[in-house]
Amino acid sequence: MPERTVVTVLGAGAMGAALTRPLAENGHDVRLWGTWLDDDIVEALRAGHDHPRIHVAVDPRVRVFTSGQLEQAMDGAGVVALAISSDGVVDVLRRAVPFLGPGSLVFITTKGFGRDPAGRVTILPPLLEAELPESLRSTTSVLAIGGPCKANEVAAGRPTASVYAGRVDAVTRVRGLAQTPWYRIQATADIPGLEVAAAMKNVYAMALGVCEGLGERGTAGGSPEPWHNLASAVYTQALLEMGRLAVALGGRAETVYGLAGSGDLQVTNLSGRNKLYGVRIGRGEQAGEALAAMRAAGQTVEGVPACALAAELVTSGAAPGVGPDQTPLLTALGRVLDGEPDVVGTLSAAVLPD
Amino acid sequence: MPERTVVTVLGAGAMGAALTRPLAENGHDVRLWGTWLDDDIVEALRAGHDHPRIHVAVDPRVRVFTSGQLEQAMDGAGVVALAISSDGVVDVLRRAVPFLGPGSLVFITTKGFGRDPAGRVTILPPLLEAELPESLRSTTSVLAIGGPCKANEVAAGRPTASVYAGRVDAVTRVRGLAQTPWYRIQATADIPGLEVAAAMKNVYAMALGVCEGLGERGTAGGSPEPWHNLASAVYTQALLEMGRLAVALGGRAETVYGLAGSGDLQVTNLSGRNKLYGVRIGRGEQAGEALAAMRAAGQTVEGVPACALAAELVTSGAAPGVGPDQTPLLTALGRVLDGEPDVVGTLSAAVLPD
Repeated sequence: MPERTVVTVLGAGAMGAALTRPLAENGHDVRLWGTWLDDDIVEALRAGHDHPRIHVAVDPRVRVFTSGQLEQAMDGAGVVALAISSDGVVDVLRRAVPFLGPGSLVFITTKGFGRDPAGRVTILPPLLEAELPESLRSTTSVLAIGGPCKANEVAAGRPTASVYAGRVDAVTRVRGLAQTPWYRIQATADIPGLEVAAAMKNVYAMALGVCEGLGERGTAGGSPEPWHNLASAVYTQALLEMGRLAVALGGRAETVYGLAGSGDLQVTNLSGRNKLYGVRIGRGEQAGEALAAMRAAGQTVEGVPACALAAELVTSGAAPGVGPDQTPLLTALGRVLDGEPDVVGTLSAAVLPD
Repeated sequence: MPERTVVTVLGAGAMGAALTRPLAENGHDVRLWGTWLDDDIVEALRAGHDHPRIHVAVDPRVRVFTSGQLEQAMDGAGVVALAISSDGVVDVLRRAVPFLGPGSLVFITTKGFGRDPAGRVTILPPLLEAELPESLRSTTSVLAIGGPCKANEVAAGRPTASVYAGRVDAVTRVRGLAQTPWYRIQATADIPGLEVAAAMKNVYAMALGVCEGLGERGTAGGSPEPWHNLASAVYTQALLEMGRLAVALGGRAETVYGLAGSGDLQVTNLSGRNKLYGVRIGRGEQAGEALAAMRAAGQTVEGVPACALAAELVTSGAAPGVGPDQTPLLTALGRVLDGEPDVVGTLSAAVLPD
């Protein structure tokens, strides 16, 4: 049994709640804090109900805190997990910083890109480290989590491979605290590779969804037919482009071809909103209308802003050596999301060999 | 329009028939020869019906020959495609050799391993080249085809990326003859990498099928639940092991991470008998009984013999540097096919990080 540690998970959404399971199984003092957007979740959990997003019970040993109880939730925390969406993660970290002790570890499940103070698109961990006070920077480390890891399955205790990236000593320590027989952690120092894969898999899952949706259209005078050859070429091109972006941002292609990239793209293509948005476009819905309908139903499609930020990354020169010519699928997908009607021609030209 | 060439496709099954489409579109003199196992197909095509396996019409410009008309089918052939299953390909090539002219090119769509004269497991192209008479060896080259390429979609003219491997001059010539706007060919010199991927994707697709089948079992007291995290870790481990085997046999890991490996594994996981066999095991059917049922229905599961041959490859030392410790998923799958009841535990131990 690992040393008992106070672990505070900030964000009570699907992934935050899921992470509490292996940590609680390992006997830690686990706290789950909900943001002001999570009030309904906190209320449901405190009433003893299943988590309303993933329909799984949270371990009764996990203590649940409301948004007003951040100080209590953070009291004595040695490890803090930020399970917050990309648009809120910096804000929540700022609120938590006053309660961070020296030597504490921060890890994020957030997927996506952000902007540095100069407005340039970048991965999130450096932005978060910049929020730490000078006094903590030498001892506190920000780690990133990726890998093929659907929250509902982690919450249900099904076998899962995750990837934790960061400083070796920090990753080793967190792995010791969080790993269980069924929740396994691969350690890597490659934060850029992992973060690029985590952000871009939501983008490319939309393209895979488009191909799946094409299969529901029906061909001229015939029954629906699959477009599996095209979908599979899209998958390979997605890996290739993620690998190029990872290298451009200082990461390694191996990370992309491993669990953090090929595995995570695989799981993201098996379910989820990014893929579903693509399916709707592939079926023939107008892209903007499909997105509006999903937003109206409260469904965020994280791949959409990530696609725009990634396009900016490759056109701005912020990814050295990688421009639009090295990411034709990214460019093609951007056009499809903008309403390009010739979906098959656009994707084919981007992913088939010259 | 490429130079008009006589192209003879040996084997009138799904892939043989499919290949005639891009070749006929390019205006070649295309002949489709059926083996003695293809008599019903030849009869159907000659009667003007759709191909009975893939339910698509064959281009009317393609001339169809019965098994007794091999000499006529081969007359003047500059390119010969062997679209024959692995257990019959050497036999068919031997019959065709007397009609091969100097400088003709032979390419194979066959996936799998064979045995060299010493009984060692090996990839197929060297075995086939050994069948060529001395007089042809300097001018005739055996190429291999792979990539994410379902026959029914090629036959229907849907966008497809294929990979042709062999000597640069030969691949360049065949690409010039066969490539169309929608049927694109990536050329590579890496025959071992392509062949390992082509054979092993059928093996690993069974493992992916098992994970999908698990999702149909239903959990204790609950409704069916996906095992996507496990499936995705299996996918990544499959790529890793295919890459190791490719390198051991003189190929390149890049080939495996490209269209020939990641793409072909992807498409093989989207449909087909190898995946379906895995699904049946995952659902809870006894492996041997499920295989017998599929065989009784005339469904060959190519991954089963390939799994046994691959296991022999890694235990015999024929894949330098790669033993069972480097291919734990292959070993685990072999146990599952042998009837191991703890499917989840066996696969998890093979693919989750240590």
